[in-house]
Amino acid sequence: MTAATRSEHDLLGDRDVPADAYWGIHTLRATENFPITGTPISAYPHLIDALAAVKEAAALANEELGLLEPEKAAAIVAACREIRDGKLHDQFVVDVIQGGAGTSTNMNANEVVANRALELLGHAKGDYARLHPNEDVNLGQSTNDVYPTAVKVATVFAVRGLLKAMAVLQDAFARKAVEFRDVLKMGRTQLQDAVPMTLGQEFSAFAVMIEEDRSRLAEAVELIHEINLGATAIGTGLNAPRGYAEAARRRLSAITGLHLVTAANLVEATQDCGAFVQMSGVLKRIAVKLSKSCNDLRLLSSGPRAGLGEINLPPVQAGSSIMPGKVNPVIPEVVNQVAFEVIGNDVAITMAAEAGQLQLNAFEPIILHSLSESVTHLQSACLTLAERCVSGITANTERLRATVENSIGLVTALNPHIGYTAATDIAKEALATGRGVAELVLEKGLLPAERLAGLLRPEIIAGSGAPAA
Amino acid sequence: MTAATRSEHDLLGDRDVPADAYWGIHTLRATENFPITGTPISAYPHLIDALAAVKEAAALANEELGLLEPEKAAAIVAACREIRDGKLHDQFVVDVIQGGAGTSTNMNANEVVANRALELLGHAKGDYARLHPNEDVNLGQSTNDVYPTAVKVATVFAVRGLLKAMAVLQDAFARKAVEFRDVLKMGRTQLQDAVPMTLGQEFSAFAVMIEEDRSRLAEAVELIHEINLGATAIGTGLNAPRGYAEAARRRLSAITGLHLVTAANLVEATQDCGAFVQMSGVLKRIAVKLSKSCNDLRLLSSGPRAGLGEINLPPVQAGSSIMPGKVNPVIPEVVNQVAFEVIGNDVAITMAAEAGQLQLNAFEPIILHSLSESVTHLQSACLTLAERCVSGITANTERLRATVENSIGLVTALNPHIGYTAATDIAKEALATGRGVAELVLEKGLLPAERLAGLLRPEIIAGSGAPAA
Amino acid sequence: MTAATRSEHDLLGDRDVPADAYWGIHTLRATENFPITGTPISAYPHLIDALAAVKEAAALANEELGLLEPEKAAAIVAACREIRDGKLHDQFVVDVIQGGAGTSTNMNANEVVANRALELLGHAKGDYARLHPNEDVNLGQSTNDVYPTAVKVATVFAVRGLLKAMAVLQDAFARKAVEFRDVLKMGRTQLQDAVPMTLGQEFSAFAVMIEEDRSRLAEAVELIHEINLGATAIGTGLNAPRGYAEAARRRLSAITGLHLVTAANLVEATQDCGAFVQMSGVLKRIAVKLSKSCNDLRLLSSGPRAGLGEINLPPVQAGSSIMPGKVNPVIPEVVNQVAFEVIGNDVAITMAAEAGQLQLNAFEPIILHSLSESVTHLQSACLTLAERCVSGITANTERLRATVENSIGLVTALNPHIGYTAATDIAKEALATGRGVAELVLEKGLLPAERLAGLLRPEIIAGSGAPAA
Amino acid sequence: MTAATRSEHDLLGDRDVPADAYWGIHTLRATENFPITGTPISAYPHLIDALAAVKEAAALANEELGLLEPEKAAAIVAACREIRDGKLHDQFVVDVIQGGAGTSTNMNANEVVANRALELLGHAKGDYARLHPNEDVNLGQSTNDVYPTAVKVATVFAVRGLLKAMAVLQDAFARKAVEFRDVLKMGRTQLQDAVPMTLGQEFSAFAVMIEEDRSRLAEAVELIHEINLGATAIGTGLNAPRGYAEAARRRLSAITGLHLVTAANLVEATQDCGAFVQMSGVLKRIAVKLSKSCNDLRLLSSGPRAGLGEINLPPVQAGSSIMPGKVNPVIPEVVNQVAFEVIGNDVAITMAAEAGQLQLNAFEPIILHSLSESVTHLQSACLTLAERCVSGITANTERLRATVENSIGLVTALNPHIGYTAATDIAKEALATGRGVAELVLEKGLLPAERLAGLLRPEIIAGSGAPAA
Repeated sequence: MTAATRSEHDLLGDRDVPADAYWGIHTLRATENFPITGTPISAYPHLIDALAAVKEAAALANEELGLLEPEKAAAIVAACREIRDGKLHDQFVVDVIQGGAGTSTNMNANEVVANRALELLGHAKGDYARLHPNEDVNLGQSTNDVYPTAVKVATVFAVRGLLKAMAVLQDAFARKAVEFRDVLKMGRTQLQDAVPMTLGQEFSAFAVMIEEDRSRLAEAVELIHEINLGATAIGTGLNAPRGYAEAARRRLSAITGLHLVTAANLVEATQDCGAFVQMSGVLKRIAVKLSKSCNDLRLLSSGPRAGLGEINLPPVQAGSSIMPGKVNPVIPEVVNQVAFEVIGNDVAITMAAEAGQLQLNAFEPIILHSLSESVTHLQSACLTLAERCVSGITANTERLRATVENSIGLVTALNPHIGYTAATDIAKEALATGRGVAELVLEKGLLPAERLAGLLRPEIIAGSGAPAA
Repeated sequence: MTAATRSEHDLLGDRDVPADAYWGIHTLRATENFPITGTPISAYPHLIDALAAVKEAAALANEELGLLEPEKAAAIVAACREIRDGKLHDQFVVDVIQGGAGTSTNMNANEVVANRALELLGHAKGDYARLHPNEDVNLGQSTNDVYPTAVKVATVFAVRGLLKAMAVLQDAFARKAVEFRDVLKMGRTQLQDAVPMTLGQEFSAFAVMIEEDRSRLAEAVELIHEINLGATAIGTGLNAPRGYAEAARRRLSAITGLHLVTAANLVEATQDCGAFVQMSGVLKRIAVKLSKSCNDLRLLSSGPRAGLGEINLPPVQAGSSIMPGKVNPVIPEVVNQVAFEVIGNDVAITMAAEAGQLQLNAFEPIILHSLSESVTHLQSACLTLAERCVSGITANTERLRATVENSIGLVTALNPHIGYTAATDIAKEALATGRGVAELVLEKGLLPAERLAGLLRPEIIAGSGAPAA
Repeated sequence: MTAATRSEHDLLGDRDVPADAYWGIHTLRATENFPITGTPISAYPHLIDALAAVKEAAALANEELGLLEPEKAAAIVAACREIRDGKLHDQFVVDVIQGGAGTSTNMNANEVVANRALELLGHAKGDYARLHPNEDVNLGQSTNDVYPTAVKVATVFAVRGLLKAMAVLQDAFARKAVEFRDVLKMGRTQLQDAVPMTLGQEFSAFAVMIEEDRSRLAEAVELIHEINLGATAIGTGLNAPRGYAEAARRRLSAITGLHLVTAANLVEATQDCGAFVQMSGVLKRIAVKLSKSCNDLRLLSSGPRAGLGEINLPPVQAGSSIMPGKVNPVIPEVVNQVAFEVIGNDVAITMAAEAGQLQLNAFEPIILHSLSESVTHLQSACLTLAERCVSGITANTERLRATVENSIGLVTALNPHIGYTAATDIAKEALATGRGVAELVLEKGLLPAERLAGLLRPEIIAGSGAPAA
Repeated sequence: MTAATRSEHDLLGDRDVPADAYWGIHTLRATENFPITGTPISAYPHLIDALAAVKEAAALANEELGLLEPEKAAAIVAACREIRDGKLHDQFVVDVIQGGAGTSTNMNANEVVANRALELLGHAKGDYARLHPNEDVNLGQSTNDVYPTAVKVATVFAVRGLLKAMAVLQDAFARKAVEFRDVLKMGRTQLQDAVPMTLGQEFSAFAVMIEEDRSRLAEAVELIHEINLGATAIGTGLNAPRGYAEAARRRLSAITGLHLVTAANLVEATQDCGAFVQMSGVLKRIAVKLSKSCNDLRLLSSGPRAGLGEINLPPVQAGSSIMPGKVNPVIPEVVNQVAFEVIGNDVAITMAAEAGQLQLNAFEPIILHSLSESVTHLQSACLTLAERCVSGITANTERLRATVENSIGLVTALNPHIGYTAATDIAKEALATGRGVAELVLEKGLLPAERLAGLLRPEIIAGSGAPAA
């Protein structure tokens, strides 16, 4: 019969930890100290994988520099690879909101890797005399370089997912832009009827917005490739031997496939959260545009009878518990809410970044937490919007064309062809009688029907604002 | 052998749901439509309980008005009570961030209550001809009155927890205020040495801040007692019979023990999120003060040798993976981060409230989500701060007294007793030589030692700023 | 010929100030140190008046306690009254954004009051040996109690202006609610047609929102009546004699007509900005509601042909430089923008409040600045909205009634009268044919025309959501 | 005797404007409609210049395309050049916060340019039959392309000023980094003593932060070079002849010296505020870093006796109205406040950008207003910080060295040289006795004095975190 617990020791004394836990005493204390959200860091698999990648890179660098016995290094590397294969994630149990600049997260990683490595070496968990979480797994490292580096690697991978989702959404909008390229409609400024355009142009604008945001996000993620591994506690590299920073960076690049760069000034890099603030700012930009686009989709699909009724969103669920048959724009609505969350997260990240003091920012855990939520929720929102809404949108083509022919704004477009005086007269009569401009133009013989039809051809209406083919 | 699934129908068609699920087709579609956070609404037990309370109240009101057969009503009530006893919470599976103004949450509740009631009546789950989620459980209701009412009831209960936690924290600070009432120290303005005070006054200020915030929170939660149950879709009470709103309110008050009030203008009440914005604003105020207090605790405990070193926070875990023996202020740090989160949530709530249109705010789910996180995380933060930090704080009394005796600011306090000219001379000499003011005053015989000691008595130094006994 | 300058002295040395300036060397340095916005504090007349009131109250209290010669006190009081009469405001020249917790503002006030008092006593400006800015005008005071007290008094008066403007706006909405009480329209949830209501109810909701916000604002301004005058530097009352705080409070209450209260714990009160955060939170709430109402006005007036076209905003200027005849909702738009500004200011105030350290918040100037802008811009926005927009709104009554008769949502209202089966059939036919529900009901003889008209009477449609008469 | 007023006409009727005013009836109505802030758009000279540049470019393009008589074009160009020379700025009187997407600003520009051009042609102001604000000055344009284009050009020039100011600040920090390169001090993480570093490294980090932010700002301003001139009302280029967009862009590039690019999709470009959101996000990043640096400066200079006392900020004004001799960190404090304002402005800009609807964002005026304040206040803040604070900072070298020699953290640095066991014993004894580590190492003969001194040489302590020479 095996014992249910093992005893571990730290500077505060002894504590029993469950015998089958890969985490140890530092993790135990952290779970007791930070009972805040109930969500463990395992909720961010990219972070767990990135921590394992950093630990693996450090072990290989230490081995290379002769600081870590090959056997130990091999065991650590094997444990890290298991983690990166998705194993042991449930052992990462400290709360996502925690004090201490990520120390508890790093300690949790050190303990899990050490105990799994011990097992692989045929030793018991907790037998730290043989392989130690701090002295071996964390060798040459500090939370203050490991944690920001892992957060950056994790963010790069998370952002890749978002970039792909944005591409899916862009494509969905672009397909509709093509589908609707011949659908005439009234353009609006300040919610007032302005001049004609095509529905294809409207959807093309949605697509282009996403495309631009993808470019900005791709630029911002480049800044995240600069790491401070080797900085140790405050950037002076204390306790990390010459060559370590470079070796660790090389190894981590190889493991992750990322072209990581070591910051030129490690003291600055260790205290600076600027790249995260910038990343969050770009996520906020994306949120703003997504929200604006969803506001437009909801507005254009308002109705069915007392609204604009220009487009129809595909029904995805019953809309009301009381009004049978009502279908609501629930997919754009959920995207709006994700946008609000991202914008709020940006404020939290801003405050956390501003609160850094002297050689370190102690508040990186909330930055990681907020950033992770923003990235992953935006990714879900983009995919959901593309697949459950945009791809099924249809246009009320006839209704839209009628509003153009009926609009006063059409006069502006016909001005060059019927002359200013006639145009003004038509506009006045249309306003006074409520009749349509097209109708009046034909009735008065100002333009032959064929000519008018020609001027209302979509490619003419689209004008110079047409997207390049 | 029983079937693994049952078939249900809605306006979009038929779908199979797991036979043992208490939720039904509407919930199924919602889980597919909103794969955003992965966190189900069961994460907010106060909300689930409040939904059950509203359903119970509505059933009793409907029975009272002769609209619902007593047998059905009894089954619905029994199902709701089970939920309020903590059962079936795992059946509330829709995502916390969802489109549709809470419709999916309400539908989830209707389905779970209906299916459990069916079971209690001896029928099969899904046998809605006998008891229907919408026609019976949701009778006389709409998401648009049920959901905001449930969110308010849930918030009242959540805030009660926060108020208690704040009282615990206030008490911890107040105990320290008493403990440190005789500890002299230099007060600081703009981080520069100002004039003497007692450490007890410093902690008393922390306690009073919390106390005032508790008062503000208690006032804000009063506003949350105004509900719109009976408003149905847009506040006109369509489909709710005369007397229903009053009966439902009376029943819900009895069930919850809250003195709920029906809004005077139900159209306004149905679209308005002002009370949530106000509540979030007060939570933000609390966050600001908590964060300021934690900043002070971290500053006062900075050191051990190169910092202010005025107080010692109890060590709760090892502080560094690389610097053995380092102990960090991790508890205040985690509270700071919760504060940043709450401040960010306030922006999300603000945007969601502003985005409401016409007769409804479709974005209440993110308001609920953000508000719930703010309240529960603040509650955890207050308790953690009280129990794992404040209650164990000790003072470096001798060091503190020495800074007072050594400070130039002491001259300001001695001014009335040694005269302006002598005071100025002492200050100049102290500045020039680096010597202490107390030392110079004694050396020059300006005051006898006993008199000086008397002037430095804590009760004299505390002055009129002393808290009322 | 008189000299163009006079020389003044401070701890940094001598400087020439213009001979005719009422401000002195401290103000001079401050203007040089803070060349930030170019806006002087005279932009906030309520603040200048409040500073003068505090200086007057302090002089009277000091005289009463025998600390200030009656002649000096009389001169100081006379100077302060001139300022409160609107004179010398141009002498308050330090920048609205300044370092130093308001010290430069207080110094500016001390110097202006002293020099004007010197003149009134027949002495030259700058003859501080006879009456000193710090030793006489600032006697018993510190920036740290004078400035927050003045900001609070100023805020109370500014908020009174806002409360009046809100009452004007509420009244404008309420008049329209009466005017439109018989105008039927479709209510909308999630921008989709829901059930009928009256336009009067819609405007009544706008009025009630403002009314509730006024109540909240009136509550918040009460909290601003608690002052810390007498606290001096850090709240210990150092250098303020026994009885001073009470005398100064009594005098200031008499001068301002406000029922001011001295904080129970002056140490806490001197460092705490909670009341400002709360006030800003309430202003944010007002901004959110105003913005939502303006969004609705813009939406309801969208058109003239391709929009909802339910109401018409009065034209106040040409809407386009290119589309003649276009009229835009510019008044609601400017209110939206003020709302965004207020919401942004709330974040600035939040950050400033959170950044307070130990015994003082050094960032009160930006709090004053942001709060003043929020209050005064909201005041202008409310008046502008009431007078230039709401009061001239007209309804397109026939169009609105037609949408009701044509809507599917009408079925929900007729359900109890024609039975569920008939209602469902009508709804299906209406959806399939695009015809109106009312028309079909009459055609099929389900209801006599008179009965239908009766059911569509505004008082029936308004239902229980009707505002209490 | 000349008349005091002239009469002008618009679609709302006739109005008298002052005879000497260059602005006309549209401007008059706008000043009446938007009495919000009292600050006219002339407060933003870059905007006025940019508007004049756009009008000039449009006139030249129109002339080139044969649409505008050369004489009219010449007069318009001459008027625009006067404005760009700083004349007539006082004629730009509409409020900075205004409804209407900038229409009133554009109209104000059209009127001033037209009336000045009329004068130059020898005609009376208001004689629009000869040269018309809309038909000539605004020919081929719309507010919706003119205004965003002008805002972008103005922002580019404003940002250049900020970039220069940031370079000055960076240089000030860098000079101090060199000056303090041999000053040893304790590095701190989480406000706790960590390991040694140099004060030069600390200041170098400040310099590098600014440098990185400059790079980010330079990147963001590139995005602002994409304009939508030629888009007219909604991006379809209606009423702008073929070739106009390209000609106008070419002319505007030549006039401004900027490499402007016409957006590929003008419909998208006309409604999109993404570049402004991104710009504001980068300004927020800068604000965050500046604020963090100022927090550090205030912390490091805390004292003089009861604080960290590591550095001294140059005194720039007396610090207290009550504590003589007190000098406060007022320059960093004012920079903190600008940072808070910028962060708040970012929220306002975010909300305004999100609120755009369909083909236009009507809220660009508040975006311009907030962005302009952020840029110009940051510029002032950087210069003030450089010139009135950083350049005069001195170090308390001896005190700093003593904290290093006395610190426990020194053990970490000596670990490799005296061995782990000895290091641990020294640390324990230092903690128990309060004695210094260096002192104990020497006393016990663990290292010769010369060797110890060698290990404490700044270049050794700086380690790998030393900035590249």
